[in-house]
Amino acid sequence: MEPGVVSRIVTDVYQLCRPDDSGTLADYIPELAAVQPDSFALCLATADGQVYGTGDLDASFTIQSISKPFTYALALADRGTEAVDERIDVEPSGEPFNEISLDPVTERPRNPMINAGAITAAALITGSDPVERFERIRRCYSRFAGRELRMNEAVYASESRTGFRNRAIGYMLRSFGIIDSDPDEAVDRYFRQCSIDVTCRDLALMAATLANNGRNPVSGERALSTALTERVLSVMTTCGMYNAAGDWVTTVGLPAKSGVGGGIVAVLPGQIGIAVYSPRLDAHGNSVRGVAACRELSRRLELHFLHVTRAARTAIRAGYSVAEVPSRLRRTTEEIALLAEHGHRARVYELHGDLLFAGAESAVRTIEAQAGELAALVVDLRRVGEVSAIAVRMLDDMQTELAAVGVRVALVDPDAKLGHLVSSLDPDDPRGRVFIDRDTATEWCEDIVLDRHRPADEPECTSISIEDHPALAALAADDRARLAKEFEVRTFARGEVIARRGSARSGLYLILEGRVRITFEGSDARTHRLVSLSAGMSFGEIPMLVGTPFVNEARAESGVRVAVLNPARFDRLTSQAPQLKLALLERLAAGAYAQMDAAVRAIAVRGGDY
Amino acid sequence: MEPGVVSRIVTDVYQLCRPDDSGTLADYIPELAAVQPDSFALCLATADGQVYGTGDLDASFTIQSISKPFTYALALADRGTEAVDERIDVEPSGEPFNEISLDPVTERPRNPMINAGAITAAALITGSDPVERFERIRRCYSRFAGRELRMNEAVYASESRTGFRNRAIGYMLRSFGIIDSDPDEAVDRYFRQCSIDVTCRDLALMAATLANNGRNPVSGERALSTALTERVLSVMTTCGMYNAAGDWVTTVGLPAKSGVGGGIVAVLPGQIGIAVYSPRLDAHGNSVRGVAACRELSRRLELHFLHVTRAARTAIRAGYSVAEVPSRLRRTTEEIALLAEHGHRARVYELHGDLLFAGAESAVRTIEAQAGELAALVVDLRRVGEVSAIAVRMLDDMQTELAAVGVRVALVDPDAKLGHLVSSLDPDDPRGRVFIDRDTATEWCEDIVLDRHRPADEPECTSISIEDHPALAALAADDRARLAKEFEVRTFARGEVIARRGSARSGLYLILEGRVRITFEGSDARTHRLVSLSAGMSFGEIPMLVGTPFVNEARAESGVRVAVLNPARFDRLTSQAPQLKLALLERLAAGAYAQMDAAVRAIAVRGGDY
Repeated sequence: MEPGVVSRIVTDVYQLCRPDDSGTLADYIPELAAVQPDSFALCLATADGQVYGTGDLDASFTIQSISKPFTYALALADRGTEAVDERIDVEPSGEPFNEISLDPVTERPRNPMINAGAITAAALITGSDPVERFERIRRCYSRFAGRELRMNEAVYASESRTGFRNRAIGYMLRSFGIIDSDPDEAVDRYFRQCSIDVTCRDLALMAATLANNGRNPVSGERALSTALTERVLSVMTTCGMYNAAGDWVTTVGLPAKSGVGGGIVAVLPGQIGIAVYSPRLDAHGNSVRGVAACRELSRRLELHFLHVTRAARTAIRAGYSVAEVPSRLRRTTEEIALLAEHGHRARVYELHGDLLFAGAESAVRTIEAQAGELAALVVDLRRVGEVSAIAVRMLDDMQTELAAVGVRVALVDPDAKLGHLVSSLDPDDPRGRVFIDRDTATEWCEDIVLDRHRPADEPECTSISIEDHPALAALAADDRARLAKEFEVRTFARGEVIARRGSARSGLYLILEGRVRITFEGSDARTHRLVSLSAGMSFGEIPMLVGTPFVNEARAESGVRVAVLNPARFDRLTSQAPQLKLALLERLAAGAYAQMDAAVRAIAVRGGDY
Repeated sequence: MEPGVVSRIVTDVYQLCRPDDSGTLADYIPELAAVQPDSFALCLATADGQVYGTGDLDASFTIQSISKPFTYALALADRGTEAVDERIDVEPSGEPFNEISLDPVTERPRNPMINAGAITAAALITGSDPVERFERIRRCYSRFAGRELRMNEAVYASESRTGFRNRAIGYMLRSFGIIDSDPDEAVDRYFRQCSIDVTCRDLALMAATLANNGRNPVSGERALSTALTERVLSVMTTCGMYNAAGDWVTTVGLPAKSGVGGGIVAVLPGQIGIAVYSPRLDAHGNSVRGVAACRELSRRLELHFLHVTRAARTAIRAGYSVAEVPSRLRRTTEEIALLAEHGHRARVYELHGDLLFAGAESAVRTIEAQAGELAALVVDLRRVGEVSAIAVRMLDDMQTELAAVGVRVALVDPDAKLGHLVSSLDPDDPRGRVFIDRDTATEWCEDIVLDRHRPADEPECTSISIEDHPALAALAADDRARLAKEFEVRTFARGEVIARRGSARSGLYLILEGRVRITFEGSDARTHRLVSLSAGMSFGEIPMLVGTPFVNEARAESGVRVAVLNPARFDRLTSQAPQLKLALLERLAAGAYAQMDAAVRAIAVRGGDY
């Protein structure tokens, strides 16, 4: 299975770009002109830390201008956005990166990606002395890369010896009051940061850390807050590629930064980081093969950040009424009839995907449009990924609005994605309740509908005698009386187990009072409700008939009274009264079959995500 | 339920921005200075055409510079990207929008959002004469807006009378050979396009059309191709907001364009279009309230286009082996044992969400990592939304690679998202097959595993006699012989119905040869397989026992031979031989119960998306 689809695409792009040996090495210091001109590496790291790469992945080169967004990031973290904005604008300059000038109107460096802005950012780094201030930069870059990066002393010495233009910029910044401190120290720090050695693999991981909201996907360490990551990527978008920013956004469409060392990093937020190393540069100072490789990768992998997906628009995965998909509570015939008539007044909405504005908007719009008809509704959030603050607020507002018109909302939100703990809401809160599973939430909505529509003179049936139990209805009166005597009445407290999974057949149970919950263990090793049964229903007939153990568990959901026909008596019927047993069996099997069939259909319609 | 959550947020932002009456009206022509300075409208249109708005939504104003991206779009469509690129760059300029200059290196207008670039774009529009060329522009804007837009004659007359600077730009363009045709005509067309009257609602729909990949979400009409839409949005990103582009990208983060008429449009690709109208302008020439409202909406609704979502990373919704979730084909005991042992060699992968590079990469990576263990696998694409070309290629490559190492792939892809029709693949294609439903695909994978692991000396059991049928196994030999005589043997051709849903009980069926498919109608009104049965299994026992009609349909999946016990003979057994009937019933009920139970569990584990 080697090398894999993605590796092969990376290799294809590498081979495609390799023949182009145009461009020239940076030569303003001898160390840059001394590198292998043909060296070439291409590396892609996903936002979850998978690395694909080819070529000289571990060749060292100096980071140069690619350092700029990272020092800017540290300055933002050290000083706050407002303080940094007072010193450095974020506008594309339209001028060479090393211009000794400020914006004529604002008298500030136009952005942090030109040298004036980058030196200002270096000046803003905090620390007790120059050594600590640079060490904080080095450690910051190392967190992005996920390994300890080191400065290249020879390159630093050369940069420092020959960097007259940058010293001029430093003094200009000092004279305009943009830098308050020693400009020599700021420029020295800038030389040092540009001289940090990296590999193409390092840069890919630094880019992947930006793609992953500022957290290094391999080490798990946070290098930058989410909000500042978004800001740094914004500035890279408009100012990252020297004067080729517009062409870059149009043809590559990724926030990026290049350096005269021959490196380029590019970031697709949330998805991947890309790095290329090839030291021959074009007229803009960008790596020739680097630009070509990024363009080709963006085209082939469709990475342009304005590339439209429909993902955010489909927040409602399914919507249906409780008449269409009832809860697994087995209702009485009267309740079933009421829910068939009025069940459209309670609806279930299953949401999915990340809940950003557009997705929340479509969900709220759909729900609001139907709310006039509703008495209650379920919003199932279990399949939702990230929930944005605006989505939380919109759902919250919707719940308040619905409460005002008498519609109650059941949130299925075991992970408290909306911030409400299951226990935190009063059961009588007019806004609604939070549930762990959809089935119970659906039952709660059904109860609301039933409460509103049950005729006042027809109270809920809660208790019956053995002889009135429907299981015996088909028998002649004397047969019924004779059979009733064979049963024994037992009571169970709420939560008590009536029959365990795997237990031998323990009898045939007719429910006289209360609710019994039949559960099974799902493939997720958790217990799920198959069905709940109430007075007038029965269970245990199949194990009794077939002679197999219980495959499901029966547990009292409330105080329960049952009539039990024990196995010995049941068996005796076979020889003493086969017709009676046959009649009983047929009746019970019909009930069991209907129950099973209803369960199959309920589960089949909306799936096993309980 | 009025006004709704989103409407209220729009209103809140509107109220927040309204008090700011700073800024000044554009006054270079009297018509612009004559508008209501306090007029203010804010409108948001979703990519599916829902409009939220407040304020003077239907007040008319001239589109001015907001026309630039739309004429640029039409020029791209008319002439092709390459021809337009030869005339207009896409770099941010760092200069005033009305500068009479070209880029000193390229000698081209720096971008289509400054006047020089916009006039060049107007010159590039095709048509047989000036009237038709302008009419094509007007119709193009109208398609974006979804209604017929008209030019404001008074504003045009003023612009035309006073536009000396733009005429200078026109002649400069002509002198540099950027415009080949009459510069007066191009400048006149530019004046006309800037004088088209729009409302805030129009602009919101024009923006929503860009958000919706170039198709007007209300009219459904295509105004621009998807590829060109992405390009226009790219240029708006870097050049749309005059010299405030960097600050705009940082604080708003939406491709946008403003005009001196007081309008601003902003686009979140795939999601929403925003428009604001408020004619008082800041120093950059952007609407004061417009900028503030966009900034506030972006912040509250989290619209920044670099805002990271995790959506694209979770392409595999579920993965499991056929041992964990078998097909609904009821297997023989031997097959069940083989699948329990070797079923881990066939896995099912359910994908979901939009399949862009990052999602496809994570899916392919996971599958490739497990492929060494596999003989076959199912890739279920039914829940996938948009599939990018790169994802198609990656899955295609993966399938070829897997075929090379002997792993066969079943694609569940009824909508041909990967471009393969179900019928198009040879059943013996080593790469695999395309299926309409996951269940059949799973069965196909099980068969591959069984073929590889079935002992050579144990051929598949295909045909049995009545007396060998397991349903009669519990009976004494003479009882069995006696009962066997009561059955009648019938044959059915492939596809023939054996028992219809709703038909009266027609007998008890023992399968002697072939496969029978039991289906039911889902809530989606389609027919789904509940289970398939083969020789040695039985059906019809429950309707027979209970006396109810068939609730499911039984149909021959292959040529089928069954032994039928008809209802009259079955009933006669009740009086003549109750013990025999009881024994038969117990055996059959056990089978029916096991079958039902297996169905419940299979469906419950992975849901009802058949």
